[in-house]
Amino acid sequence: MQEHPETTPSEKPEAPQHVSGRIGTDAVDRNDSLEQRILTDPGRFRVMTGDRPTGRLHLGHYFGTLQNRVRLQDLGVESFVLVADYQVLTDRDVAENLADSVEGLVLDYLAVGIDPARTTIYTHSAVAALNQLLLPFLSLVSVAELGRNPTVKDEIAHSRQAAVSGLMFTYPVHQAADILFCKANLVPVGQDQLPHLELTRTIARRFNARYAPETGIFPEPEALLSAAPLLLGTDGGKMSKSRGNAVALADDADDTARLIRGAKTDSIRHITYEPATRPEVSSLVLLAALCTDRDPREVADGIGTGGAGMLKRTVTEAVNEYLAPIRARRTSYAQERGFVRNILKEGNERAGAVADETLDEVRRAMKTSY
Amino acid sequence: MQEHPETTPSEKPEAPQHVSGRIGTDAVDRNDSLEQRILTDPGRFRVMTGDRPTGRLHLGHYFGTLQNRVRLQDLGVESFVLVADYQVLTDRDVAENLADSVEGLVLDYLAVGIDPARTTIYTHSAVAALNQLLLPFLSLVSVAELGRNPTVKDEIAHSRQAAVSGLMFTYPVHQAADILFCKANLVPVGQDQLPHLELTRTIARRFNARYAPETGIFPEPEALLSAAPLLLGTDGGKMSKSRGNAVALADDADDTARLIRGAKTDSIRHITYEPATRPEVSSLVLLAALCTDRDPREVADGIGTGGAGMLKRTVTEAVNEYLAPIRARRTSYAQERGFVRNILKEGNERAGAVADETLDEVRRAMKTSY
Repeated sequence: MQEHPETTPSEKPEAPQHVSGRIGTDAVDRNDSLEQRILTDPGRFRVMTGDRPTGRLHLGHYFGTLQNRVRLQDLGVESFVLVADYQVLTDRDVAENLADSVEGLVLDYLAVGIDPARTTIYTHSAVAALNQLLLPFLSLVSVAELGRNPTVKDEIAHSRQAAVSGLMFTYPVHQAADILFCKANLVPVGQDQLPHLELTRTIARRFNARYAPETGIFPEPEALLSAAPLLLGTDGGKMSKSRGNAVALADDADDTARLIRGAKTDSIRHITYEPATRPEVSSLVLLAALCTDRDPREVADGIGTGGAGMLKRTVTEAVNEYLAPIRARRTSYAQERGFVRNILKEGNERAGAVADETLDEVRRAMKTSY
Repeated sequence: MQEHPETTPSEKPEAPQHVSGRIGTDAVDRNDSLEQRILTDPGRFRVMTGDRPTGRLHLGHYFGTLQNRVRLQDLGVESFVLVADYQVLTDRDVAENLADSVEGLVLDYLAVGIDPARTTIYTHSAVAALNQLLLPFLSLVSVAELGRNPTVKDEIAHSRQAAVSGLMFTYPVHQAADILFCKANLVPVGQDQLPHLELTRTIARRFNARYAPETGIFPEPEALLSAAPLLLGTDGGKMSKSRGNAVALADDADDTARLIRGAKTDSIRHITYEPATRPEVSSLVLLAALCTDRDPREVADGIGTGGAGMLKRTVTEAVNEYLAPIRARRTSYAQERGFVRNILKEGNERAGAVADETLDEVRRAMKTSY
């Protein structure tokens, strides 16, 4: 995926410095208690996640967020997954082939086990009532607040100010519409996306206080902090499809083998799991462990002095075996003509009905039902 | 009406310094030629105007813009009139009584001769597909361009930056959606609103160049410059209902007489029409002239040494006589239960169908029809 700010939470596999170490003890406690409440009564929750359709999903996305989405869905949490096609418009390369990117993303979703019967998959462009919410929400935040958003600030600092589009500047508000249109009360996020979710909570609170002080219309969604595993790209950098250092879910077994064979390791023959001092080797060990549901130390011990060559063979086998059923499903769905189109059509209709209902409530609260 | 930036062109009666004197000869020539094309082939044009529902319309609005809208409608130009209810959200007093303000505005429209059979009257809040256009349009303008908009700059200069809402900051883009959703190619504007229309033209051009380079989807609407007459409030300041210095269309004859009786004049008994040196007296003379379709000099000559008293009686009679049928229609429409509601419902449905059609075209052009 792109190095762009994200439209939606929980999409970006965390860089190492963003992982659980930084999450304070209080936050961990709160998170544990939230997990407990989800397990006890999943029906009380509605979760919203999504991705910008900028390319094929890879193992970083899988272990960072997709697996968790499927877990929540399978627990019985009602789920909405947004294909954020209005947040790639300024990326001309993506925009040129948007339909392909969107179809690929939906295939990835289906392949990993997101079930359209239980999870609503939809696109920005198709849900007008969702987008309309941007207007009242924009009235509830100031230009100064928008400028303070860390991702937007980052973007302004990194590009010429002139190049920051109005869409980029307002996207945290659009994201609030993404989350609140379906009254999601649970949003899995990485630590760095907390400020976005905080703005959504602020907008929900301000809207309720101003227009529906007694009953409220929007929940203040809770952050489900996910500490993504410490997976690096095969070059030791951040995993990113555009850098060619990530195994895509859709890659075939041979490409996967070739990529892992070329992975960066170090000069110590004895394989150990020491993320702090041996990040590249440890990332490979962790990947094999995740794919085989074992402890990474145990995986490392099993290789021992087998060295980098044996490590890479182990990882390749583990990854290809783990992904085999996912890839098979992906291939089979891709061959069914019109399949993805129908899934999206149904998801968009369902999301549209939910959005229309929310917008009607909003109109009544704002006294704009004439 | 409020001293707020306007959502839509052609709403604000110009302050004296903004009148025709400032319009260059080239612009006047262009305008004359545009008028000629409208007269020759009104069916080629589609005009979009509108108002923020902030209070009752007054004589400044009437002679500044409403009369011209009715003229264009009656010439056979297809007309759209927007009740810009999403552009008053930050004004709490207005928002509290929005339904009343909207109903009053529609009654004013109907009373002056805007005919819902030929003119589509609609509200922002009801037309989701119009509002959705804000998203792709925001991707086509930069934050720097938005900050350069004179009205937005003005607002930022006059309030604390923190108080400028995201809605205010993006409203020139929302206005582009207001105009382009119905592919209006004609927008009556005052000189000070030209920068807004220019942004709409820029957005139309950029959208076409990027997404529909061969056929284009949006017209670049032409500005029909209207030099509003030099009407001042009865206190000699800018006419504004909130200052209590303007005759509202909905006022009764007695209130009108009282207001004009208290109007500021000067100490010279002999009445003349000299706007530059005797602004208050000349404004009253002009008002009587407009209401009786005479030349203001002729009106002044008729009063001569009759002084301010006779001037005011003349103005009162002229205004009340001119407004009598308008007021009668207003009263009669106001008594028909559900009348305004039905007009708006039908207008919103018509505008919604137009917006849906445009949005479908936009989706195809952007390749977001999956």
